[in-house]
Amino acid sequence: MVERDRASRRHALIESLIHRQHLVELQLKLRGLHSADIAYILEALSLENRLLIWQQIQEERGGEVLLEVSDAVRDSLIEVLERPLLLQAIGQLDADDLAALAEAIPEDVLAEVSQTLPARDRDWLQTTMAYPKDTIGRLMSQDVLTVRDDYRVERVLGMLRGRDDLPHNTDSLFVVDARNLFKGVLPLRALLLNDPQARIADLMVTDPVVFHPNGAAGDAARAFERYDLLSAPVVNERGKLIGRLTVDAVMDFIRAEVEKDALNQAGLRGDEDLFAPIWGSARNRWLWLSINLCTAFIASRVIGLFEGTIVQIVALATLMPIVAGIGGNTGNQTTALVVRGLALGEITPENTWHLVFKELGVGLLNGTVWGATVGVLAYLLYWNLELGAVMAAAMLLNLLLAALVGTLIPLTLNRMGRDPALGSSVLLTFMTDSMGFFIFLGLATVFLL
Amino acid sequence: MVERDRASRRHALIESLIHRQHLVELQLKLRGLHSADIAYILEALSLENRLLIWQQIQEERGGEVLLEVSDAVRDSLIEVLERPLLLQAIGQLDADDLAALAEAIPEDVLAEVSQTLPARDRDWLQTTMAYPKDTIGRLMSQDVLTVRDDYRVERVLGMLRGRDDLPHNTDSLFVVDARNLFKGVLPLRALLLNDPQARIADLMVTDPVVFHPNGAAGDAARAFERYDLLSAPVVNERGKLIGRLTVDAVMDFIRAEVEKDALNQAGLRGDEDLFAPIWGSARNRWLWLSINLCTAFIASRVIGLFEGTIVQIVALATLMPIVAGIGGNTGNQTTALVVRGLALGEITPENTWHLVFKELGVGLLNGTVWGATVGVLAYLLYWNLELGAVMAAAMLLNLLLAALVGTLIPLTLNRMGRDPALGSSVLLTFMTDSMGFFIFLGLATVFLL
Repeated sequence: MVERDRASRRHALIESLIHRQHLVELQLKLRGLHSADIAYILEALSLENRLLIWQQIQEERGGEVLLEVSDAVRDSLIEVLERPLLLQAIGQLDADDLAALAEAIPEDVLAEVSQTLPARDRDWLQTTMAYPKDTIGRLMSQDVLTVRDDYRVERVLGMLRGRDDLPHNTDSLFVVDARNLFKGVLPLRALLLNDPQARIADLMVTDPVVFHPNGAAGDAARAFERYDLLSAPVVNERGKLIGRLTVDAVMDFIRAEVEKDALNQAGLRGDEDLFAPIWGSARNRWLWLSINLCTAFIASRVIGLFEGTIVQIVALATLMPIVAGIGGNTGNQTTALVVRGLALGEITPENTWHLVFKELGVGLLNGTVWGATVGVLAYLLYWNLELGAVMAAAMLLNLLLAALVGTLIPLTLNRMGRDPALGSSVLLTFMTDSMGFFIFLGLATVFLL
Repeated sequence: MVERDRASRRHALIESLIHRQHLVELQLKLRGLHSADIAYILEALSLENRLLIWQQIQEERGGEVLLEVSDAVRDSLIEVLERPLLLQAIGQLDADDLAALAEAIPEDVLAEVSQTLPARDRDWLQTTMAYPKDTIGRLMSQDVLTVRDDYRVERVLGMLRGRDDLPHNTDSLFVVDARNLFKGVLPLRALLLNDPQARIADLMVTDPVVFHPNGAAGDAARAFERYDLLSAPVVNERGKLIGRLTVDAVMDFIRAEVEKDALNQAGLRGDEDLFAPIWGSARNRWLWLSINLCTAFIASRVIGLFEGTIVQIVALATLMPIVAGIGGNTGNQTTALVVRGLALGEITPENTWHLVFKELGVGLLNGTVWGATVGVLAYLLYWNLELGAVMAAAMLLNLLLAALVGTLIPLTLNRMGRDPALGSSVLLTFMTDSMGFFIFLGLATVFLL
């Protein structure tokens, strides 16, 4: 029952059923799977086979499966599903789930589905959709169990016994006063551990972590991690309880962010479906390719300035990529540290200069050690002492430059209110390439000709 | 009460108290903070100020703070703390927490502390420490509340009322039979919603997700995300319940993995403290720098083979970094996708070839489009049609190569049982640089001389 083995065996079975077109057996097999497992299987299939699977799952489960797949796979399915099938699938979802999917669904389909919702759910959908992307308002759920602060344990237990079920991830109830103003949090355990006659106001936690709907989802994620929360109240500016944030929504958010960051850093926009058609995949990479082409051309023009020097000392052409490349790599190390520090909130106005000087110190030390190494190697290759010295000096200067821009680029992007993880690396490599070529070839022109 | 604002204001206040050496005020302020918040403040301070803060926190909280700080900061503190202070701090922790810290604590200190533990806790510490790193056995906790399957709700409620508190993240109790064999999971809500006379065996969930102590922690993390778990039983191969895995431990694991990956990909070993001393930081980057230097030198020797060609057509020196650079970047896009696909388990033996051909198709398409663009630009710069054609052909070939090795490198590392995220990028850039130079200068030697 080890998760990974079970998953891959299931996967192989489904693939073979598809291959042999055993549709009835496929339907039976899918019926026994969790929606998240079906979603997982869809991720690894071509679009054609995804549709085949989709047709075999029960109609009422389509919405759940859409919720569980990645953005890219969801888009690929929604694009090809016929309108009635899509309406049927998402028609099964509640307002919270619809809000989570809303961006992927064509506007007119969403409007049509929301007409079928009870008025309360329709209002909720509109309210949450009004909050900007990546805010807590977008992640919160309306399933809140509230109790009044003047109740006793016995009454709350009676209320609960009258219900069929509790909302998912309910580890606590939220306590409000007669005007629905938020007062505190009552852990379920308090109901189990205390005397039935105890008053809720005496048992509740009065200073829990509370969120505002306009707060950043990323900050909520940090708080959930830091304080080990399972659920937390969302309260508006007047202190009224309006929703609930749960750890599963927060974990999904963290995972999506992590994956988006990893792909963005490699220059892929948003989510890319691993099995997307060639044309779509190729275009998804063009923005980055064209930026890259521009920076590469500018760096190349820097070399062009020194063609006269290179004709006289061709060894320079051979050695120059080393200076540029190692500068880029050390700069990226610095940038990665600073981006992480910014994400964790470890970098404050008070310690910024300390950090810049520390990175410059590291650059000076590494530039001296590795510059000398490279200088000796260059000398041994060409038996030219001046060439070795120029190489060593260029490495030292480029590593200092890399430390400086590797720190300042993410800090500046962050100060400008932009995501420092996005574009830092392109800008940095551009600087270390261009300046690396300029420093090395410039020093060579001055000292070697 | 927006988290981020509150945190940064607190931060500024602490920094100013340190600056003005208001130690009494500092102590008072720290007393009111959650251990996680103190840990967060320590992250952003220099080692000297970290020690100052450490001296101001109450003795019994040191262990908790050590638990919450990042690996790098923990190492920095443990290195400088005197032995009695360290013993005092970790002496407050229970066996689960000690197990979490064990790797950071000097062996003899750990041995001394474990002597003071009750026998049951000492056994637990030894048992969990025996599991390999990054297994579920290492993450699990011993705080398990079990009930027998033949009990009734009433009896369980009575048992719970007799306790002061429940273990953290208790959303369910685990059900065992008379021989302590695991039978199922009883959600707390079932106790609240059902008749006191109902039998546990009738209320429990009999097919919950169950983990084995030797399973990979990463697989457990996936399962927690996929099935929205809050806690889950850990069961040994004989079906005996031995521990419990909770969502907070899983979230900490995910966060640590994500950060390690981000730093590893930039060529930093493990965790690096943002405010570490220069010497330590510089050395932390040497492994990567030396690997990088080797690959850069080999690529440079490839250019060296063609110095005779470059002397005759110096434009080649100017243009060659474009071919290599864009090849490296497109290859990294492919690698990032494949690494993610492997991490998510989306890549199966059945679809591997589909994926390789798709990426080759993307490479062919992008190579044609961008190769032609670059060829035209090269022509316009040097008014040399043959040079433009060689440039276009070299770009196309290098982009095809990048697609092929960008897919095969992570797949091969994975097949060899290694982490595909680690080293893929270095190997890829090495291939696209060396081969990019070779293809471009080789074509030029054949067709332009």
